[in-house]
Parts: sequence; C-alpha cells; structure tokens
Amino acid sequence: MKLKDLDNISIIGIGLLGGSLGLAINRVFPRVRRSGYSHRRVTRDKALQAGVIDAAYPTVTEAVKGAQLVVLASPIGTFAKLMKEMADALEPGCVVTDVGSTKVLPVRWAKKYLPKKVEFIGSHPMAGSEQRGVDFARADLFDGAHCIITPTSRAKKVTVEFLLEFWQAIGMRISQTTPLQHDRILARISHLPHVLAMTLVNCSDSEQMLLCGKGFLDTTRIASGPPGLWRDILMGNAANTEAAIGRIIKELERVQKALRDGNEKAILKKLNGAQSKRNELIEKKLMLRELPGS
Amino acid sequence: MKLKDLDNISIIGIGLLGGSLGLAINRVFPRVRRSGYSHRRVTRDKALQAGVIDAAYPTVTEAVKGAQLVVLASPIGTFAKLMKEMADALEPGCVVTDVGSTKVLPVRWAKKYLPKKVEFIGSHPMAGSEQRGVDFARADLFDGAHCIITPTSRAKKVTVEFLLEFWQAIGMRISQTTPLQHDRILARISHLPHVLAMTLVNCSDSEQMLLCGKGFLDTTRIASGPPGLWRDILMGNAANTEAAIGRIIKELERVQKALRDGNEKAILKKLNGAQSKRNELIEKKLMLRELPGS
Repeated sequence: MKLKDLDNISIIGIGLLGGSLGLAINRVFPRVRRSGYSHRRVTRDKALQAGVIDAAYPTVTEAVKGAQLVVLASPIGTFAKLMKEMADALEPGCVVTDVGSTKVLPVRWAKKYLPKKVEFIGSHPMAGSEQRGVDFARADLFDGAHCIITPTSRAKKVTVEFLLEFWQAIGMRISQTTPLQHDRILARISHLPHVLAMTLVNCSDSEQMLLCGKGFLDTTRIASGPPGLWRDILMGNAANTEAAIGRIIKELERVQKALRDGNEKAILKKLNGAQSKRNELIEKKLMLRELPGS
Repeated sequence: MKLKDLDNISIIGIGLLGGSLGLAINRVFPRVRRSGYSHRRVTRDKALQAGVIDAAYPTVTEAVKGAQLVVLASPIGTFAKLMKEMADALEPGCVVTDVGSTKVLPVRWAKKYLPKKVEFIGSHPMAGSEQRGVDFARADLFDGAHCIITPTSRAKKVTVEFLLEFWQAIGMRISQTTPLQHDRILARISHLPHVLAMTLVNCSDSEQMLLCGKGFLDTTRIASGPPGLWRDILMGNAANTEAAIGRIIKELERVQKALRDGNEKAILKKLNGAQSKRNELIEKKLMLRELPGS
C-alpha cells in the first residue's frame, strides 16, 4: 500500500478523534472516500451533516468494505469486539491501525482476531482534550502533535512507511517505538498525570476547593476526562502505571522529609530543578512550533 | 479607618501583584495617592512610567510616610525585615496588610515587629500567575478572584470591615478565616498542587517529556513558578503541606493496589468521583463568574 494509491478509508468510531480525523483527511486528501461506523444513529447523522465522513454505517462489516485503511477510533475497550466483527469483511492487503492510548493490548488483540490477509500496526496520535464526541471534531486537532507508531518486528517496511506518511500528511510529528516501550513512556507522561489529577481532586474537600485558583484548576483539568475511557487506559497499562506511581510516591516522601527537616536548600533545589526542566521543555516545544500561538 | 477616608496607600514591592494592585487602585480610587517601594531602580522607573504608582522610593521608611494603608506585596521571605524597617515610620492608626500566600508567619512577624500604634491584618488575594514582575501588571488581575482575610481575635471590627471593603472595591470575593485555618486550607488547594506539579516534572525523563501532550503541560504549569517564592511558601507552611502530601501518598497507594488487583470497578469509581467533583467545581465557578469567559 502506498499513500498515493489511497482512495478509501474507514473510520471506526466517530467521536472527537474519529471525527477530527475525517475532517483532517478531507483537508489533505479531498478525493479519498471516508466511510464511518457508529452504533448510534444520532452520531451518524451529525457526522454526515458536518461533512466529517462521506458515508455512515451502523455495522463495521459495512463500514470497512472496500477500505484500504481502517482506523479504529472508538474507546480502546471496544477494540477486541470490533476486530472480531470486522475480520471477515476486511479487504486483503488492507492496513488496520488504531488511535488508542495504550499499544500492547491492541497489538495483542490484532494478532489474535485479525486475519493474516491484513496488516495491523498500532498508532497513537497524541491529540485530544477532555471533551468528547463528534460535536467537538476539528480539522486541525492533530496539527503539530506527536503520533507514535508501534510496528512489531513482523511489520512490512512498506506498510510502516505508508502509515508514517499518512499521519505526517495529517499534520503530525512521528515517533516510532515498540508497543512495550510506548506503554512504558506513556505511563509516565500521560497516565501518571491523569492519576495525579484524579487523586488531587479525590483528596480535596468540595468546600475548600471553591477557594482554589487557576493553578489548582489547570493541575486537575484532565481529571474531567471521560472515566470509562480512562479506566480502560489505566487497566490496559496497569503495571507500568503502578510503577510510575511508585516513583512519584518515593519522591513525595523525599519532599516530606525535606519539609520535616526544615531543609530549605533541598526544597529550593527541587523547585529550581523542576522550573528549569519544564521551561526547557516549553522552549523546545515552542521551537518545534508544537504550542498554540507559536 | 473608613474606606471613604482613604487617600494615601503605600505598596511595598512592585512586582506582578504590587503593580497590578497599583493599577487596580487607580481604576477604583483615582484620587488616592499610591506610593511604592522597590529596592531596584529599574523597577521604580518602570512602575512610574507605566502609571502603576504615583511616587517610587528606594526605602520603605520613605514609602510608608503618610500612608493610611500599607500593603506588603514583596516575596514573603522579605516581610520580617521590611516590617522592622518600616516600624518607626508608620503613621499612628495605619492599617498594614500583605498579599502573602501563607498567613501564620506574617501574623506572627507583625505581632513581633510592628508597633502597637498600627494594626496588622493578613490578606491573601488569590490572584497571580507563573509570571513575575511589574511588566506583567494588569488592572484586572484581581477581578472576580478570592481574597482571604485572616484577622486575629484582637482585630478591631472597624478595621476588618475597612480591609474587607477595600479588597471588595478592587473586585475581589472575600472569605474570612483564621491564619491557622487559612494555612491548612491553602496547603491542600495551592501548596500541594505545586508540590505535585514539581514532583511530576522532577520524576520525568527530559527526552520522554518531549512527547508529552497538553495534559502534561497543564498539569505541570505551576512548576514554572518562581522557586525562591515557593521555597518560602512551602517552608512557611511545612507541617500542613507535609500532611497534605501524606493524604495524597495514601490515596496513591490505594490506586496502586486497585491497579495491581485488576480492580477496574475501584478505578472507575475513583475516575467517576474525580470527574463529577471537578465538573461541579467548574459549574460553581462559572455560576460565580470566576472563570475567564464566564
């Protein structure tokens, strides 16, 4: 499969990510036919009205028919079931990918449920927000954001190249790693922050929170994300997330000790370290034009 | 002291908060004379040029002369020294307050260093950002934000009323509590989030962070705040902050256990709880018009 030959894409699940993908594809590949699957009538109607897809189907077997590229964009907890459903209807040589936030499980499911005549390579386009649904779909959601693709050792080079070029065309920066390493990294930079935001809210008193400022609100923003989706992410990457939490607990205990000992040098060192490390990150992201307004 | 009689204010320290206060005062009380203190020539010049104050002085004794209200707006670590310096120059009957983020220590220093002829009541206007300096001063910085005032049992009712009306006139919502209770609450809703943001950055790998999305950036935004200021805040509220960290560690251990046990019901319950609790907070803040754009 080569990118220039792509003329038929199927998007399975038309929420924020699937819908935005439909809009982005239309912007870059105006001639590619976009079929979509949603089990909800209202979503299919909205998606068609908004021009997010060209055709909407209530079954995956209909939606994947004739598609050269199938993108699973539904919650990760639905992947196994959807793969089983689509297996017989997929075109030989079809490339299947997904937009799930963990990669070990989707790759495992694909090996188990998808036929040998198709190729699966996991993708993780790191875009989105705490908002959900096709109503929030935007053609520029992926612009400048990172996409990690996770081919296994058995992936064909030409297919890796195709998928890489596809996400690049959508406007993303590509990184490539193994499913295992992906999940280890994401546990630290995504699943852990979610756990911390959730835990901070759960440990706070509702009355006292009312007095909070912008700092608290920003620090906890992602705790407003969809719980079902995040349950699947955290459970699907449980061991790595648990390990990442362990590192945080150890460091928090060191902060506690410094506070208890009145060790203001240690506290200042930690504050300085975090400030300069984060500022460097922001500078790099600005240089790469990854931040809004940059 | 009554608000209608106020015609001379002294702002000690002309950074983001002091500068914004100067601009806000001018908006609400255009006839009140604003004198300011900064030990830095460049800050005094900038403040005068930007109309943040009417007169700038390099010593606090000059700056507080004739003032009916003195507002300490420098970093909390400088308060004790500045109080000692201003003690003899303060007008009898003058009201002294501050904008520091902890309240037990400023109240203790005031009792120790300020003369009996003046009255000190601590204030904590909860506005600001990770930015610093008079360059970022804005007349609307305090609009709609909370200000906690912390009179002790010895405060005169008329003085409490005066201070309350002053911050209200500046555009703030007032809460009133004891210095002790203030510091306990702030440990949880402000100092703890800062520790978590700092700790998350310090536990992250610089290379891996480059892959992070908006969630990580928001969760860690406050870690870019000024380290010296935050050292003073955390050390000045060490016991409460340590206790707040302890609550977080206990809850993180429960999350770890749920992940280890594959207890997805427990994880979902925590995610649901945090989402609805935070969404309620946002709704209340929107209702109170405390959020930008609301």
